[in-house]
Amino acid sequence: MSDRPLQAELRNSIVLVEDGAKEELYRDSFYGRPAGKHIELSLAEAAYLLYRKKIQVIAGGKELDFRSFFEVACSLTKNFELKYIVYSDLRGRGYYVQPGTPDFRVYPRGGHPGKTPAEFLVRVLSERNPLPLPELLRQVSAAANLKKSLVLAIVDEESDITFYGVKGIAMKGTMPPLPEISAAATLLEDRAIIWDKDKSGYLHRTGFFGNMLDEERLQLSLVEGAYLMGKGLSVTVPGETEKLGFPDFRARAEKIEPEFMNKYAAYADLRASGLVAKTGFKFGTHFRVYSGLPKNIEHSKYLVHAIEYDHAFSLQRLSRAVRLSHSVRKTMVYAFVRNRNVGYIGIERMKL
Amino acid sequence: MSDRPLQAELRNSIVLVEDGAKEELYRDSFYGRPAGKHIELSLAEAAYLLYRKKIQVIAGGKELDFRSFFEVACSLTKNFELKYIVYSDLRGRGYYVQPGTPDFRVYPRGGHPGKTPAEFLVRVLSERNPLPLPELLRQVSAAANLKKSLVLAIVDEESDITFYGVKGIAMKGTMPPLPEISAAATLLEDRAIIWDKDKSGYLHRTGFFGNMLDEERLQLSLVEGAYLMGKGLSVTVPGETEKLGFPDFRARAEKIEPEFMNKYAAYADLRASGLVAKTGFKFGTHFRVYSGLPKNIEHSKYLVHAIEYDHAFSLQRLSRAVRLSHSVRKTMVYAFVRNRNVGYIGIERMKL
Repeated sequence: MSDRPLQAELRNSIVLVEDGAKEELYRDSFYGRPAGKHIELSLAEAAYLLYRKKIQVIAGGKELDFRSFFEVACSLTKNFELKYIVYSDLRGRGYYVQPGTPDFRVYPRGGHPGKTPAEFLVRVLSERNPLPLPELLRQVSAAANLKKSLVLAIVDEESDITFYGVKGIAMKGTMPPLPEISAAATLLEDRAIIWDKDKSGYLHRTGFFGNMLDEERLQLSLVEGAYLMGKGLSVTVPGETEKLGFPDFRARAEKIEPEFMNKYAAYADLRASGLVAKTGFKFGTHFRVYSGLPKNIEHSKYLVHAIEYDHAFSLQRLSRAVRLSHSVRKTMVYAFVRNRNVGYIGIERMKL
Repeated sequence: MSDRPLQAELRNSIVLVEDGAKEELYRDSFYGRPAGKHIELSLAEAAYLLYRKKIQVIAGGKELDFRSFFEVACSLTKNFELKYIVYSDLRGRGYYVQPGTPDFRVYPRGGHPGKTPAEFLVRVLSERNPLPLPELLRQVSAAANLKKSLVLAIVDEESDITFYGVKGIAMKGTMPPLPEISAAATLLEDRAIIWDKDKSGYLHRTGFFGNMLDEERLQLSLVEGAYLMGKGLSVTVPGETEKLGFPDFRARAEKIEPEFMNKYAAYADLRASGLVAKTGFKFGTHFRVYSGLPKNIEHSKYLVHAIEYDHAFSLQRLSRAVRLSHSVRKTMVYAFVRNRNVGYIGIERMKL
């Protein structure tokens, strides 16, 4: 580029650069888009070029310095400063970036507009924005339809950026389905116990259900108990002889654990998909999930948390969950029920 | 012990063992407590001995097998099955355990009643119990007064136990106090910018405040801005000339971040104690905390989360926070305001 700053003008939320800029800004460096004789810059592009003294910006006949331009841009666009932080980070690290939906289209390393398609669709968020699941799902599938990856760029209060890749996940494991069983359990507060030694051993050994209380008795969690009821387990309450129906069991479970039905739906779907779900309490999630019998596989591959379809993520909590799953080499997955089907999205930290 | 089970009787919530048990159960193995000619066992002790066929339990003239005794014990004591799980885990791994407040007194390895004082006071919780901070603080200080450590034994839904040590922490660092400054910043939505190059550099370099937006400008978080206002920073809003007073700043900050005052109280106290607090967003907490200037120290030592004094911990969330801090070799600390002072408790996973 030449040393003389190009003349540009702020009009509404757009910065138009003088004739002659096409070559320098657009063809060589992929800033802006052609608009007739001019090049049109977004506010983030303009602020970036202004800081680097590549352009001079006039508004209402007066030149704006960086600070004035920045303050005006903040008043014109919500979260301008966040977009600027992310734009200049990406651009400063050699990525070509164009405005797009949700916020930016980012080209792969070595690629640029006109040569390659964009690889990432980037959404910029402050750590304080709550993020509703339905909105995130729409963006995940919009990106997938365009064969691009959705990336969340979350800016923290000190303006550091963390990038997260988000995608739909098909959960599939290798466990054969459990045949019908005949066994009995007692429901004690928030867990059930199978007292019979052989049945306890069988369920624990072949399906990795529950946890042995001692060498003879098996303790089941509420979701395990509910799932095994569907396979033939009869459950009673101490002092009563008649066995519990599912609605009764569910009512008791929901009193103890209000999210029971979310957890149960995810658990049953994971089991039906050949996966083994065990409690993820130590990781602060509902489940850790193995793709087969743990003794053959050792490490669980996923942490799964069951949420309502209308859940709104707190980004601070999301960050903690993803960071933790990353540190134990698992993928953080959220499970939700939509139109009676269980869906899954995986969220991973990424370097961009 | 002899092979013949000792005769015992269930009376109310106590199991009394026949005369002659003193030697076998109490003197040799530290089960129960002498009660006249008898030895008195807690329900957990009795269930443990019943499973090991050391005692036979009679209630109302009828012998109870393990299952019947377990079901009766569950009906007599809330969370009996949790207490049994923790008791038999500790006892099974060679610890001597006596009933106590909150739940168990546990002797150090190699120690036992009559030889050494108990080392740990153990509280048993289900992962589903919410844990109110004031209650936890009472137990922490009760344990400290007795020169013992408070341990939470949290039983998850599959009956695995995680142990957490909890103690009060005195937070103290090595940073000299910041002198009064003269600088100006603009508040833009949820962050403030200092435009002056020298002041930006000075604050960032000597106090590790904020994050450089570029080589010239410093971005401050809301708590940093508020803290520096107390040191002489004047803050204005774009388009206004009069500087913001603290009440105005606070009102704006609380709109963006409802927990602002909790965070601010902790931040200011940490700074006043010679520590450097930076955002902990990547770890899902309010702050990561260094005991001095990070360039000399490298790693932050603590993750600090500011909570209300009447906060009730979700144990699932607590577990996630502590697990994460453990994985990055930091101590998880909760900060709270009580009687206008900021207090801290640290929670760490422990092997017991």
